[in-house]
Amino acid sequence: MPQFGGIEAGGTRFRCARGTCPEDAQITEFPTTSPGTTMARVFDFFRGGGSLDAVGIASFGPVDPDPHSPTFGYITSTPKPGWRNFDFAGAVRGALNVPVAFDTDVNAAALAESRWGAARGLHSFLYVTVGTGLGGAAFIDGRLLHGRLHPEMGHIRIPHDLARDPFPGNCPYHGDCLEGLAAGPAIEARWGCAAHLLPDGHAAWDLEAEYLALGFAAFTCMLSPERIVAGGGVMQRPHLFSKIHARVCELLNGYLQPPEIVAAELGRRAGVLGAILMAAQFAR
Amino acid sequence: MPQFGGIEAGGTRFRCARGTCPEDAQITEFPTTSPGTTMARVFDFFRGGGSLDAVGIASFGPVDPDPHSPTFGYITSTPKPGWRNFDFAGAVRGALNVPVAFDTDVNAAALAESRWGAARGLHSFLYVTVGTGLGGAAFIDGRLLHGRLHPEMGHIRIPHDLARDPFPGNCPYHGDCLEGLAAGPAIEARWGCAAHLLPDGHAAWDLEAEYLALGFAAFTCMLSPERIVAGGGVMQRPHLFSKIHARVCELLNGYLQPPEIVAAELGRRAGVLGAILMAAQFAR
Repeated sequence: MPQFGGIEAGGTRFRCARGTCPEDAQITEFPTTSPGTTMARVFDFFRGGGSLDAVGIASFGPVDPDPHSPTFGYITSTPKPGWRNFDFAGAVRGALNVPVAFDTDVNAAALAESRWGAARGLHSFLYVTVGTGLGGAAFIDGRLLHGRLHPEMGHIRIPHDLARDPFPGNCPYHGDCLEGLAAGPAIEARWGCAAHLLPDGHAAWDLEAEYLALGFAAFTCMLSPERIVAGGGVMQRPHLFSKIHARVCELLNGYLQPPEIVAAELGRRAGVLGAILMAAQFAR
Repeated sequence: MPQFGGIEAGGTRFRCARGTCPEDAQITEFPTTSPGTTMARVFDFFRGGGSLDAVGIASFGPVDPDPHSPTFGYITSTPKPGWRNFDFAGAVRGALNVPVAFDTDVNAAALAESRWGAARGLHSFLYVTVGTGLGGAAFIDGRLLHGRLHPEMGHIRIPHDLARDPFPGNCPYHGDCLEGLAAGPAIEARWGCAAHLLPDGHAAWDLEAEYLALGFAAFTCMLSPERIVAGGGVMQRPHLFSKIHARVCELLNGYLQPPEIVAAELGRRAGVLGAILMAAQFAR
């Protein structure tokens, strides 16, 4: 029976898993500190079990996921201390002596949702996470889209009505891009209250639905998904989904069929389970 | 030596070609009228030559390009008289008794530019045409993106500063979507003068560059192309390309590397040459 390892590297937490699927995966997690300390804990975890056939890495970005590039498997231009230009795939390959698959955390989560979660059986869907950032993965025509790098859907500009919402946006690169208007920190900065503390009836959620609908409608025009699977801290509000869907329908206005918009099913385990799946696909 | 047929069905012109490449293709064209009259001319053209190994159809949309769908090869919800729900692939297969490949006109043009034009050798690029409409094709990770249907990139909403540009947009579905602000008819409606008659120094071109840059920046965040190949009537202005590129750089602001933005090379022949290529790939 093959055994696979998965590493989800988040900006604040690392998760490691060994196994083959949600039922048998053993998962551990610990805080992200320096690369030296953090990777030592990763290697300890994997060395404490039996041998592995392959390891998948699902990393925070930006990363270089192009297997033909000399910096394949690196975290590239992150401002996170110590991690800039870190040869992640090389470090794991060197320490554990196994084949290593490498992609972004959102791509891995999308893969897990397609196998075990809210996108089972679909040929084309998007996975969008709205939390401390706003990121997305495109699984289209049966596979993950990469392009030159990987999608950065959170950074599109959307219409911003300054009369309705004078908040200038808080993306350090773009100000009022989608992430700068709609991710968790934008909600907190605009209303002076953490998103998870705002009651369901608060006006914040109508505005949030407006921005996410503008984003999801643009994603639909560009990528033609059957479904949008949405997760992350900000999306833990069931009433948001129907608000967004109604507004996406209005925005598309019959020109295109709106995608279904549903909640992600695998929660915090999506990334690390996706990393296991990447390892299994790579070893096959 | 195999022989292929190509049909490009445009809203106002049909083009038919037989051959294998730009050097040997024999091309004819005629106006698009009723399906009966138009298709009779198509069949006359192809019956007048030798036998064909396959025919590719590159059609105006919306179309159903999903080979698993019961309406594969149909033009679907067009307002164009007589063409709604026309079984285009079925008609050609029935009349000429050959295998038929079917896709949108922009997808076919992108394919031709990737083989013989401005995107030779690229793994990921976009083809965008700005004329009477604004359409795009995404050739990403070595193949054309379809999704549930096909991209409709022209219909994304972009920021619209009503103080700078009070024109409300003229897309019948969305008003001020990208196509409604930036396609040829929008330019003409806003300035009261056909786009091709506006001098290079006219303020129209700064505004046009702004809208196209907003669109191209969004396309880049979403699809991560190495290059954007732009064609169509409105793009026949060399100075537009540098204006757009400069503004895309500002909009991305160092977060992502901007794609190259270059002129399409195959002009009006792109679609019908792409249709030949589709036929060749299908017959292989």
